[in-house]
Formats: sequence, C-alpha cells, structure tokens
Amino acid sequence: MENFDFSDIRRAAQRLQGHIVRTPLLSSPMLDAAAGCNLFVKAESLQRTGAFKFRGALNKLLTLTEDERAQGILAFSSGNHGHAVAAAAHHVGCTAVIVLPKGAAKIKVENCRWWGAEIVFFDPETENREAVGRRVAEERGGLTVVPPFDDYAIIAGQGTCGIEICEQMQERNIRPDAVLINSSGGGLSSGVTAAVKAICPEADCYIVEPVGFEKMARSLEIGSPQANPSVPKSIMDAITGPIAGTRTFSVLRQHAVKPLSVSDEEALVAMEAAFRMLKLVVEPGGAASLAAVLHRKADFAGKNVVVVCSGGNVDPEVFVRAITRA
Amino acid sequence: MENFDFSDIRRAAQRLQGHIVRTPLLSSPMLDAAAGCNLFVKAESLQRTGAFKFRGALNKLLTLTEDERAQGILAFSSGNHGHAVAAAAHHVGCTAVIVLPKGAAKIKVENCRWWGAEIVFFDPETENREAVGRRVAEERGGLTVVPPFDDYAIIAGQGTCGIEICEQMQERNIRPDAVLINSSGGGLSSGVTAAVKAICPEADCYIVEPVGFEKMARSLEIGSPQANPSVPKSIMDAITGPIAGTRTFSVLRQHAVKPLSVSDEEALVAMEAAFRMLKLVVEPGGAASLAAVLHRKADFAGKNVVVVCSGGNVDPEVFVRAITRA
Repeated sequence: MENFDFSDIRRAAQRLQGHIVRTPLLSSPMLDAAAGCNLFVKAESLQRTGAFKFRGALNKLLTLTEDERAQGILAFSSGNHGHAVAAAAHHVGCTAVIVLPKGAAKIKVENCRWWGAEIVFFDPETENREAVGRRVAEERGGLTVVPPFDDYAIIAGQGTCGIEICEQMQERNIRPDAVLINSSGGGLSSGVTAAVKAICPEADCYIVEPVGFEKMARSLEIGSPQANPSVPKSIMDAITGPIAGTRTFSVLRQHAVKPLSVSDEEALVAMEAAFRMLKLVVEPGGAASLAAVLHRKADFAGKNVVVVCSGGNVDPEVFVRAITRA
Repeated sequence: MENFDFSDIRRAAQRLQGHIVRTPLLSSPMLDAAAGCNLFVKAESLQRTGAFKFRGALNKLLTLTEDERAQGILAFSSGNHGHAVAAAAHHVGCTAVIVLPKGAAKIKVENCRWWGAEIVFFDPETENREAVGRRVAEERGGLTVVPPFDDYAIIAGQGTCGIEICEQMQERNIRPDAVLINSSGGGLSSGVTAAVKAICPEADCYIVEPVGFEKMARSLEIGSPQANPSVPKSIMDAITGPIAGTRTFSVLRQHAVKPLSVSDEEALVAMEAAFRMLKLVVEPGGAASLAAVLHRKADFAGKNVVVVCSGGNVDPEVFVRAITRA
C-alpha cells in the first residue's frame, strides 16, 4: 500500500469494528468555561491498551499474510506502540518482540510483558532504535517489523479515530471548526487529519508537539522530514520520538496543518483539568492538545474545538505531580 | 407517581436522551485476569457532573410543573446529588439551593457553587439533613425538595443506567450473570436492578455497601428500612448516607438482591486498578462494586460480571493515597 487515501481509513474502520473501543467524545461546561470555547475531548486513553496505538497496530497485523503472522513480529517503540503491538499480536495469535528505550515508563514495560511479548532494551543516547530493531528481527529469522508510524496501514488504523470524531460531532449536529492532535512521528496526526479533511473539510487541523521537540513543525517549515536536534528532556515521553515520518509528513503537508507546541508545565495543567473535570487519566503526551487549547496557543474563542487525549499510560508519580500542583 | 415499574424507566430514558452521556461499558483483559471473571465496567464517572446522579436529578426536574420549576428547587445531599441537582437546575433554567454536610469533599462544594447554586451547610453530627432542607425550603417561600433517592422519578432516572448496561451487553452478545451496584440510600441500586431484572431477568443483582454502613443489607435482613447505627468514618463518602429509602428498599427486596460490603482499603485497591487498567478516575464510593469483585466477595469465577463505577468526584489527596499505596 504505497498510495494512501481516505478509502484506506474507511477499510481500516470496517476491519477494526468490534475489535477496538469506539471511545467517547466527552465535554464539560466547566472545561468549556476554562477554555473559552466549545471543547470536545476524544478520550482515546480509554482505547484498548490505554492509547490510540492499538488501532494502527491491529490494522497492520490484520493486513499481514498468514505466513508473516506465523513467523512473528517486532516493534520498536517509546512505549505505547509497543504495548499496543503486544496486545494486537496476542489478539491475532502471533509472537512479538518489543524493542524499548532504557528508561521507558515502568508501566509501559510491564504492560508489554503482560501480553507475553519479549522485551529488548536499547540506549536512546547511543543507539538508533530502528537499527536495533532490524538487527533483532534478522537474528530471530525474519520477523516482520511493525513500524510505529511511517506506514500506511498504521496511519489508516489511527485515522479511524478521525472518522469517529466526525461521526460523533455529527450526532451532536455540531460542525468542528478545529481539531488538535498530539504529534510525534505523525501516525495519529496524519491519519486523523486525512479522515477529518475528507469528512469535514472546513475544519482546521493542528498538530501539537512538546516545546523543544517541534520536529514536525520544522519539517513543515523546511519542506522535508526533520529530526529533533538533540535529546532534551520532556515528561511528554509519548511524543518525543527522534524523527518525523516521510509518509506522515507528506499527508500533514498536503492538508496544510498548523503546528502548535506546549511546555511540560502546560501539559501538567491539562492533566489536572482532565482529572477534575472529565474524570480521565491522561498521560503528559496525551494531554498536549488539551493543553494547547487551555493555554490559548491559537485563537479558538467561541469555536467548536476537538482535542484528542491520545493516551493514559502514566506512572503514578507523574500523575501525582499533575494533580497536586495547584 | 406512586406506582413504579419498568415503563417509568423506559420513559425516563426517552426524556433524558441527548441530555445525558451514554457512558461507555469498558473492559480490560488485565482487569479480567485480576478479577478472575469477564468484567465489564459501566463508567458512570464519565456522566455529566462526574456521577450517575445527573440522570435522576434531571429526570425529576423534567417531571416538575412549569410553576414548580419557576419557584426553584432545593436538594440535601452528601455531595454528588447536590452537584447533579445544581447542574440539572442550570440545564432547565431554575434556581437551586443545595444543603450539604460540613466536611463534604471540597470538590463537591465548589462544583455546586460553579453552577450558580446557593449552598447551605448543616452539621451531620447534630442535625437531620432532611429537617434542615425542609426548613430552608419553607423559608424561601416553597421550594420543591428534590430528594436524593427515595422518589420514583429519581429511581427511574438512575435506572436508565441499567437499560444502557443491558443494551451494551447485548451489543457484545454477552448475557450478564451478575450486576453489582454501589448502594447507599438505594436510588441507583434499585433503579438499575429494576431495569436489569426487566431486560435480563437471569442476572443476579448485588448491592455493595461500605463495611460498617450496611444499612440496606440490614434492611433486607430485617424486612424494613434501617438507618446506620452511628456515624463511623469511611472514605466512601458518596455511599455513607444515614438511611435506606422506603421505596428503594421495596424495589430491592422485590428483586431479592444480594448484599456485599467492602472496606476502605479494598476501595483504594479498586481505585488504583481503575487508574492503571482502565484510565478512569473513580471516587472511593464509586469503586465499591469493583472492589467487591476484585476481592472475591462472592464467587464470580469465570462469569460475566458488570460493575457500576458510579462516580469520580474525588479530592486529589484521596486519589494520591489510592495510586501511591502499592
């Protein structure tokens, strides 16, 4: 699948139906007051494995051949993707190796193991995760690598979240003015953007990155996929991967998405808001788009705005930091 | 409405459609493994105002006359009911006075005020909340008292949660063997039981109370509504009200519900499980039925079990206690 369009997302939605959670689109008058707009929160933290990643992972595994599935699969991941691939592999009955960075959130490591996956660690400061993943795949006799984002089956799977957003807004008879999506490699943001632009073309789509990790913003500015310049720190570990995808970048550029960025402190404020007003557990990187709206990173006053709270896999100590900061 | 049957719940569901959240029924293979059964969690913490109470409050207000609504309403509440009545009053455009115990969770007090309701405090150790509520209602020239549970419009509203549970299990082609419902005065438990027994009569219904607050269990044993004997302490503040309702008791007895009880520590364990495996914020009293299953308070091994996580209005310090106890 090297050509990609909305029909791929539609087919993914059919393939995944009954196997994924149609996550709720939530709202709160208190949150609207805090944000100064009509805010709708796609609670993708309630997806299986606690993040949107299960959509793409399962779609990818369901498009492999029987032989490929029998041989087994491998994923390199900052955490949520690995958990999702481990769960999806268990769902379809194939073995999985997950390559994780040292220092990944404990909950993410434990979650991968729970599904029966084998974990291989790498050092993000000295090793390239793709190279490590490909070496292990070869050593094990030809595992299929399930990439975290730069793959049209992955993008199409994540895009099913965008179809649901449009359907759920239509159920409310409300047209979205803006849709904000957390972005790292760009799998979720490109998939959701492609779906939203196909169904609700008048909506503006935004990507939200951590301050200091604006690789996709720079990619869009420069006109080709860029890497993050160094390895700074952010608590938004789910969206601090080193590189922007080529395919994801291409989709995002085609639709002229607008980039925004938020700080760790702003993400913590958004996590507290989700705890208090929505009763959702959202991880730092999952709260970036909510943080962008709450901190008025663009003018959304009075508009109908959708944010994707993309994951909830957060260690307790980080969650405590968010909800006790007031 | 002094006769009550399932048709009242059906009518409430029609009345409330589009005004309440059809909360998701969530599951997690990890949680199933921990519980030893197939567990389905009705996430009523995602209801408007963070608890099921909005269902009954809005149904009650929508069944009042125009004149009654114009005069204004009053509610006495341990917290979640007051918040729900305040929000429902705002929704239908009438004024509200909320009578709260001194020492109610801060979040609950602030939430009532946010909706524009006036707060009147009473001392639960020296005053009767119903008496205080009725006195204030008279002083203000005849406010309609919206009782927290012992009212058929309230029970019917809460029962809509039970209709949704049965529909959502039918969507999965799974018949529930058991449904566990947190219980204090009995509004939720009687409403949900009446709905479940009408649609899925083969399911066993259980009520879950805090240890030391088993007023409904004692009511069922003795055969008439009982009060709690004293004012012990429990962190499950949402379900430690002093009395069992007469109407709610009657419905629960008719359907031969089975009583269970859980400790504060067990509720905290369940809150941590909901945080980690479901990404839900659940308050202590809202986690009682989940706690009962996780601590094998009855034999549910291998069964299809539904629990209602009834609310998520928890102060941060209590939530921190739950998620950092491991």
